[in-house]
Amino acid sequence: MEKRIAPAAGRLGVLTVGLGAVASTFIAGVELIRQGLAQPIGSLSQLSRIRLDEAADPELIRDVVPLAGLDQLVFGAWDPFSDNAYEAALRCGVLDRYVHIEPIAAALKEIEPMPAVFDQAYVRRLDGTNVKPAATRRELAEALRKDIRDFKAERTCDRLVVIWCASTEVYLEPGAAHHDLAALETALDANDPSVPPSMLYAYAALKEGVPFLNGAPNLTTDVPAMVELANTAGVPIAGKDFKTGQTLLKTVLAPMLRTRMLGLAGWYSTNILGNRDGEVLDDPDSFRTKEKSKLGVLEHILEPERHPELYGDFHHQVRINYYPPRGDQKEGWDNVDIVGWLGYPMQIKVDFLCRDSILAAPLVLDLVLFTDLAQRAGLSGVQDWLSFYFKDPQHALDVRPEHDLFVQRTTLENTLRTLASS
Amino acid sequence: MEKRIAPAAGRLGVLTVGLGAVASTFIAGVELIRQGLAQPIGSLSQLSRIRLDEAADPELIRDVVPLAGLDQLVFGAWDPFSDNAYEAALRCGVLDRYVHIEPIAAALKEIEPMPAVFDQAYVRRLDGTNVKPAATRRELAEALRKDIRDFKAERTCDRLVVIWCASTEVYLEPGAAHHDLAALETALDANDPSVPPSMLYAYAALKEGVPFLNGAPNLTTDVPAMVELANTAGVPIAGKDFKTGQTLLKTVLAPMLRTRMLGLAGWYSTNILGNRDGEVLDDPDSFRTKEKSKLGVLEHILEPERHPELYGDFHHQVRINYYPPRGDQKEGWDNVDIVGWLGYPMQIKVDFLCRDSILAAPLVLDLVLFTDLAQRAGLSGVQDWLSFYFKDPQHALDVRPEHDLFVQRTTLENTLRTLASS
Amino acid sequence: MEKRIAPAAGRLGVLTVGLGAVASTFIAGVELIRQGLAQPIGSLSQLSRIRLDEAADPELIRDVVPLAGLDQLVFGAWDPFSDNAYEAALRCGVLDRYVHIEPIAAALKEIEPMPAVFDQAYVRRLDGTNVKPAATRRELAEALRKDIRDFKAERTCDRLVVIWCASTEVYLEPGAAHHDLAALETALDANDPSVPPSMLYAYAALKEGVPFLNGAPNLTTDVPAMVELANTAGVPIAGKDFKTGQTLLKTVLAPMLRTRMLGLAGWYSTNILGNRDGEVLDDPDSFRTKEKSKLGVLEHILEPERHPELYGDFHHQVRINYYPPRGDQKEGWDNVDIVGWLGYPMQIKVDFLCRDSILAAPLVLDLVLFTDLAQRAGLSGVQDWLSFYFKDPQHALDVRPEHDLFVQRTTLENTLRTLASS
Amino acid sequence: MEKRIAPAAGRLGVLTVGLGAVASTFIAGVELIRQGLAQPIGSLSQLSRIRLDEAADPELIRDVVPLAGLDQLVFGAWDPFSDNAYEAALRCGVLDRYVHIEPIAAALKEIEPMPAVFDQAYVRRLDGTNVKPAATRRELAEALRKDIRDFKAERTCDRLVVIWCASTEVYLEPGAAHHDLAALETALDANDPSVPPSMLYAYAALKEGVPFLNGAPNLTTDVPAMVELANTAGVPIAGKDFKTGQTLLKTVLAPMLRTRMLGLAGWYSTNILGNRDGEVLDDPDSFRTKEKSKLGVLEHILEPERHPELYGDFHHQVRINYYPPRGDQKEGWDNVDIVGWLGYPMQIKVDFLCRDSILAAPLVLDLVLFTDLAQRAGLSGVQDWLSFYFKDPQHALDVRPEHDLFVQRTTLENTLRTLASS
Repeated sequence: MEKRIAPAAGRLGVLTVGLGAVASTFIAGVELIRQGLAQPIGSLSQLSRIRLDEAADPELIRDVVPLAGLDQLVFGAWDPFSDNAYEAALRCGVLDRYVHIEPIAAALKEIEPMPAVFDQAYVRRLDGTNVKPAATRRELAEALRKDIRDFKAERTCDRLVVIWCASTEVYLEPGAAHHDLAALETALDANDPSVPPSMLYAYAALKEGVPFLNGAPNLTTDVPAMVELANTAGVPIAGKDFKTGQTLLKTVLAPMLRTRMLGLAGWYSTNILGNRDGEVLDDPDSFRTKEKSKLGVLEHILEPERHPELYGDFHHQVRINYYPPRGDQKEGWDNVDIVGWLGYPMQIKVDFLCRDSILAAPLVLDLVLFTDLAQRAGLSGVQDWLSFYFKDPQHALDVRPEHDLFVQRTTLENTLRTLASS
Repeated sequence: MEKRIAPAAGRLGVLTVGLGAVASTFIAGVELIRQGLAQPIGSLSQLSRIRLDEAADPELIRDVVPLAGLDQLVFGAWDPFSDNAYEAALRCGVLDRYVHIEPIAAALKEIEPMPAVFDQAYVRRLDGTNVKPAATRRELAEALRKDIRDFKAERTCDRLVVIWCASTEVYLEPGAAHHDLAALETALDANDPSVPPSMLYAYAALKEGVPFLNGAPNLTTDVPAMVELANTAGVPIAGKDFKTGQTLLKTVLAPMLRTRMLGLAGWYSTNILGNRDGEVLDDPDSFRTKEKSKLGVLEHILEPERHPELYGDFHHQVRINYYPPRGDQKEGWDNVDIVGWLGYPMQIKVDFLCRDSILAAPLVLDLVLFTDLAQRAGLSGVQDWLSFYFKDPQHALDVRPEHDLFVQRTTLENTLRTLASS
Repeated sequence: MEKRIAPAAGRLGVLTVGLGAVASTFIAGVELIRQGLAQPIGSLSQLSRIRLDEAADPELIRDVVPLAGLDQLVFGAWDPFSDNAYEAALRCGVLDRYVHIEPIAAALKEIEPMPAVFDQAYVRRLDGTNVKPAATRRELAEALRKDIRDFKAERTCDRLVVIWCASTEVYLEPGAAHHDLAALETALDANDPSVPPSMLYAYAALKEGVPFLNGAPNLTTDVPAMVELANTAGVPIAGKDFKTGQTLLKTVLAPMLRTRMLGLAGWYSTNILGNRDGEVLDDPDSFRTKEKSKLGVLEHILEPERHPELYGDFHHQVRINYYPPRGDQKEGWDNVDIVGWLGYPMQIKVDFLCRDSILAAPLVLDLVLFTDLAQRAGLSGVQDWLSFYFKDPQHALDVRPEHDLFVQRTTLENTLRTLASS
Repeated sequence: MEKRIAPAAGRLGVLTVGLGAVASTFIAGVELIRQGLAQPIGSLSQLSRIRLDEAADPELIRDVVPLAGLDQLVFGAWDPFSDNAYEAALRCGVLDRYVHIEPIAAALKEIEPMPAVFDQAYVRRLDGTNVKPAATRRELAEALRKDIRDFKAERTCDRLVVIWCASTEVYLEPGAAHHDLAALETALDANDPSVPPSMLYAYAALKEGVPFLNGAPNLTTDVPAMVELANTAGVPIAGKDFKTGQTLLKTVLAPMLRTRMLGLAGWYSTNILGNRDGEVLDDPDSFRTKEKSKLGVLEHILEPERHPELYGDFHHQVRINYYPPRGDQKEGWDNVDIVGWLGYPMQIKVDFLCRDSILAAPLVLDLVLFTDLAQRAGLSGVQDWLSFYFKDPQHALDVRPEHDLFVQRTTLENTLRTLASS
């Protein structure tokens, strides 16, 4: 099996859809780490260890599987705003200007976003001028494919990964156009509005043989047509919606309740954030997409059908509030009403003062490196071993998704062990 | 192997050391559940399911291993206060008088505590009159053995379990008297003050062939002499310190940080509680015992030696405040200073409005039933598969204790699976 | 002046509109206090002291002004549900059944609600059967007047007060029908939908010479037509919206910021509650009425126009979530982003685990007694000295309303001092 | 009376005892404000308005009384560490280096601390080398007087103010040496250990006719001997302990409870902070001084003797924890157990993420300017109209101190009004 994984040689191009808070924090971070100015905290691919067998000492993941090194990464992006990565980092206010932006200003200024495929019908609260001229969906998809090919050629990349770090689109139900690849192709030709921009990016990447990762709750690749395309093209896909703050905690606390057989009466979650993501989610239709992604987790972990006496009637509510004073410094407040011995109520309250992009950036890095590894190992289609990173993991149709963070971690490790021995 | 587990026939006597908030909540709860007036929420032995193999549906634990049924339990207790279980339940204020105490008043009134072995030198904030007359440690141990034999005979029990549900004793370092069984016997004869009351109870139980469980952080059986006695006598022991509120959360949140490679700068934990436990812990020497039990958990889970860049320098502080207005309704507040991508600080705050005895009672039930099972299965000595239930799990000398709740759960399940197939 | 205040002789009828959580908690409380079974905590009229002059010791308010005594109160109510006060108290779950309801069950069962004027167009989430038959607004108003006269006669009351303890109606802008009394009379005759049920109650009370108090944010008497009627009839009115939990805190914390010249960047307030009030406010149109009442307070206290550098651009958001697990035990969580020296940000978070009706009930008692006093003292029209009790105090058109709790208290005391000396 | 207030002409020297976080944040802030680089947020003297009579519009305080302007201030300091103000500001980590320190580096570097009178017996957790050589208390006092005279002459100041911005000394009861000025003089000559360093600074200032302000809870001027000296010398004094975070909130929330006649069962306050102040307070003897300052406030505001049914038995606890990860960013967490109608319990929790020195700095500015005003107005001795700024206001022996923030504010305003009209 050893020959199955191609070596991580050459340059790996990383194309982010969106050059906002998450993408600029990710790119600046990699540059700072390359220069020894900061640590890749939060990144499993850089820091975490894995035990290949019970008796051995744990080893660094990056020592047991052939990952691309940080020095091999080359960055590009699309964005409807024309700010370069330096300007974007300043505007987003995530990183300290003097400590973490100015020292790498030159490198950041070189990253200029390509014009985006953008349509306000899908993201109503934003607008932008760095946008590809109006055209049919088919033409736009082809323009994105050309962008990808050009980037690869101009920047002499050996391989690429595309990752969605952009906004949440309005809610979309899977429909006829998403049913199989043929239908999707027809919809592109017909300029069918059931194909949102995110699907154009995914289609373009997959057609170019480039893996596509989805950090937002958008449908995108989570439809049969895209899975068919990924399988046909032999390309990995994974998603959806980075598991960062509140949901990260939820996927740890809910298993705690369940493993202790403590009941749940209600879980109220609210968020305040003031970045562009918060602004977009202020639109009820975008929020609906996000809400669906955030609500499923408890049902999947607690399995009310197995424990109706404990979880048969809990009330779960998730709110997101656009609150400009906070910028990227998201705060999630949870109130959890639990039930103990003989039915006595207790409460857990969690206040998570987090930073949206600081939590997301290392996930971007890991996902890029692990997906590139997967492709070199010949894995294609849905990578459900990466569910560890997602709020609403895309999975095969006949598989129940796993939300418990520690079970997800075990799956991730098991796959890495298999790859390590191949 | 099938013959290895003796059937759970007959009556199982449960002797609690202490008839305070935890013991009375446990006893009243079992009685209410027997009468169909309440649910055994929080109890794995009553509600939880386990999958015997991957393909099968999960089954109730009590259907796959032969546990004693609730109807087989018979209760007794020692306590330095002479309140019966009805009076104790009223005084402690854990249970609603009209809903959960009066309907079973008759049963509770029958449980009168035996005079306790009590010495204020070890628990300074309490005093009591229902105490065995002053005597040497040897005489006291023999008196306890007689209590156990008499209870068994009078209440026609087939088997017994003794469980410590009493206060935290002052801090004690393991010493010469605890080094081996011979030394302990000598110390008993010499009335050596390094043998506190809790050791007399454990000694008496083990000598009578009765398993002993330790719900407090006291040293008790966590010394070589007691392990030798347990092994010699073929009796299971387990401890120490019920894992209920704040530490339960800690053993879930710390693994989350580690699995995501998020750094830790500091963890400040404070508690307010107003029950007798809080009063006892107001004595700095008793608190020292508790503090040691509560502090170890982070070091064990985070392993600073493996990840010095993430966990090499965190500040961990635990405070317990005796705060009478709260009674048994303990509140634990945690502030966790975490570190993300590039070193940016974030904070998690957890406020746990719990109920001390409501969380502990189902642990008492599970521990009693599982330890009785262990004895019938021929397991003796330290039962580290029960670490799931303890803040500071007693373990073999050459074994690193496990604190991660989910790893503990896996160990528990694996042992149950083994027992199920035997 | 002494003759100005008529003595508080005879029986004072208290008619509550609504016999839900607030009204039943108020009525049961008064009964318990009369029987010496509980304390009137939270009631200024019963417990608070006032200093008549600088040199004197403070005296109980009820010793310096002639208030009706609790024994003189007689209760009646309207409600669209036919539960009597005993059934309502049980259903609402505010009071402990065995400690605070059963001992006074007989008295509570005697209070049967009169059929209500109810129209689902104004309170969409409720429905009820104890409702006056459909009729024109004029006929309904006359039916309410007859209820008032009958109650007074049958229960041999000397005086009455009507107080709105019912739900929040949908949002209503003041319109032509509210412009003066003549227009209102015309609208009644024309059965104009701009006259909601709450106005019918107020109209009926005032026409009968009975003071009307408004505990909800509904428009009701806060229109010129009603003020004209109150002035003409010589009857006191006051409102609106009882100042209980979160807003109570806000009217204390905002003055703190201002008095220390600390800036405000944002204030996010969320509430979870599960009683009928929460259910009604789940309707966006009812919430809009409430939101308007809750939002004004910061602007009035902080006066951005005077301090644009501190308060010129703060973001204020209020959310209410219907969350059934909580029942009447409302929880309000506030995050306040403040600004200090040189512009550095700081945060205050307040979590108020309150009880909606427990906070409201003593306000009902005080308002009833003080308004009855006002009427006996010959005060009529808007009683803005009672702004202390309201989230959104009704005031004369040319007067800026006062929201600062301590300024409101001073005004209340000054009026009481004036009345004490008359 | 107009001639009573001397004009604020010339240069006003401000000598801070301590050049740590508070003093350097104050000094840097004034410099930044002078250069138009920041706003004096939190300072009444710079931003607040006052209404001279009911009818008038409010005017800026600094327009109605003759305060020294920021440009007239000249800074000096004593400190046992030899860091200049630039180095101190960097080390303390309160201000952003690039935004608020480097732009004024030159000005800060000029402020070099004079050698301090320092004795580890009174502040055990600190040590320093920039210390006056060991000598008798009398000699040290004279050395400080010389420092003051020299500073005034060398920097050509017209007037001076000395303000204690240094650490909390160990607990000290008033004793014989503090009984009157003669006894104090004798104690100085006898090198009596009951005279701590803070008293030497105060003595020196007062003897030089310079006002002394006390920002720590140390006894210092709060003894008869010092009051006598201040009165004799005609110099104002004020203290003690800047009212910044948790106590500021307490003096607002406790009046809220009282004004609403809500009962109090318990108030638990804990703090985590990691600056030098936190380190000093980690010594139980220094903490005892602080605790006494923090505990008194509730008793004074709630007056249990007047309302035993509401406040007769509350449990008040204050904790301070030295928690290095936090630096100057103090966090205060309060749990308040309140009691409502019929005795039902409710809870208020407040989490204040504040910044110790950011809250204190504007108080230093106001106190300096107002005390200088007082001296020019001929006011001498205890300035209890400045109680607004202190946790434990020094007051005349026969006067009950006022802790309610809003009453304190009224007193401050009334005094300013009187001065404005003189």
